[in-house]
Amino acid sequence: NIRNLAMEKVASTVMFPCKYASAGCPVTLLHTEKPDHEEICDFRPYSCPCPGSSCKWQGSLDAVMPHLTHAHKSITTLQGEDIVFLATDINLPGAVDWVMMQSCFGHNFMLVLEKQEKYDGHQQFFAIVQLIGTRKQAENFAYRLELNGHRRRLTWEATPRSIHEGVASAISSSDCLVFDTNIARLFADNGNLGINVTISTC
Amino acid sequence: NIRNLAMEKVASTVMFPCKYASAGCPVTLLHTEKPDHEEICDFRPYSCPCPGSSCKWQGSLDAVMPHLTHAHKSITTLQGEDIVFLATDINLPGAVDWVMMQSCFGHNFMLVLEKQEKYDGHQQFFAIVQLIGTRKQAENFAYRLELNGHRRRLTWEATPRSIHEGVASAISSSDCLVFDTNIARLFADNGNLGINVTISTC
Ligand SMILES: [Zn+2]
Ligand SMILES: [Zn+2]
Ligand SMILES: [Zn+2]
Ligand SMILES: [Zn+2]
Repeated sequence: NIRNLAMEKVASTVMFPCKYASAGCPVTLLHTEKPDHEEICDFRPYSCPCPGSSCKWQGSLDAVMPHLTHAHKSITTLQGEDIVFLATDINLPGAVDWVMMQSCFGHNFMLVLEKQEKYDGHQQFFAIVQLIGTRKQAENFAYRLELNGHRRRLTWEATPRSIHEGVASAISSSDCLVFDTNIARLFADNGNLGINVTISTC
Repeated sequence: NIRNLAMEKVASTVMFPCKYASAGCPVTLLHTEKPDHEEICDFRPYSCPCPGSSCKWQGSLDAVMPHLTHAHKSITTLQGEDIVFLATDINLPGAVDWVMMQSCFGHNFMLVLEKQEKYDGHQQFFAIVQLIGTRKQAENFAYRLELNGHRRRLTWEATPRSIHEGVASAISSSDCLVFDTNIARLFADNGNLGINVTISTC
């Protein structure tokens, strides 16, 4: 098909503006480069960081905390760099999310514990921390998640995700604290699981 | 059936010697208590601690190290309380075991990494440490397994198992370091995975 080949040739040399040009992005790119850039473009609007994605809110970074405060009032916030994220009733069946906020170093972090069944009959827990901030800001921090039990400890340390990239891809690639229901049982007390969360700067 | 009831009545009051009486165990027990005691009886012979159980060797605790040295010559031993357990070719398909020995504090520890497919299509790795010694001796130690990657660290700390109880039940109940192939990929280098192993006394 000659016409398509001609179109492809044009598309492979012409520069296009970024999808978020109207929001202020000055970048122009080849057609083939557009998707990768637009995924990480600083001018892309932020989505609501609450897991489960039932909330369709989008807006600027500055508007995220006001959105959470007004639309997700039930989320608890704890102050300090070293807190306990208490997930209650972890034996509830089905896919469940536990969420809380941690405020320290002048920033807000969202702690997420998600129960999923990626493999038939094999429920897993995924715990992760995301910064209400940009990817660049996230790189200045590290977080540690710790399960403490009788003569046992499981620890995961990593860089927080930015809410701009979200946690879904990290969870699907297991780039977070992953544990199964057996481990949860080893560390839980009466169906409640305490996760020690420590944020530090680096 | 009157005769069985009578037998049961006798069995429920008569004391029987432990199965390992001939090996020196002085304990006598009710019929119902025998299985539990015999499982943990100090006079029960030790089995070969190599995972996979293709070796049917049994003997006394003192004979375990000589057995390993003579019958399992390919197992590497490293000296010191802080070593690296290097598992090569972790992407090999199917169920695979990696084994090495660590010698410190005057004792020998067997490090085991096992790849299994407990759930269809979901390969998992299980790493654990067992002491060539009794359960009582094992309680005097703690071990730490650590995977280190780029801005990521996964750590498991626990009490070593005794080879008298073995590692199979701990692995099946996830009471060890558990991670999937995604995580292995995050921490592996060219298909080789280094696990930092630290033994301490407590
Ligand atoms: Zn852009
Ligand atoms: Zn929302
Ligand atoms: Zn006995
Ligand atoms: Zn053997």
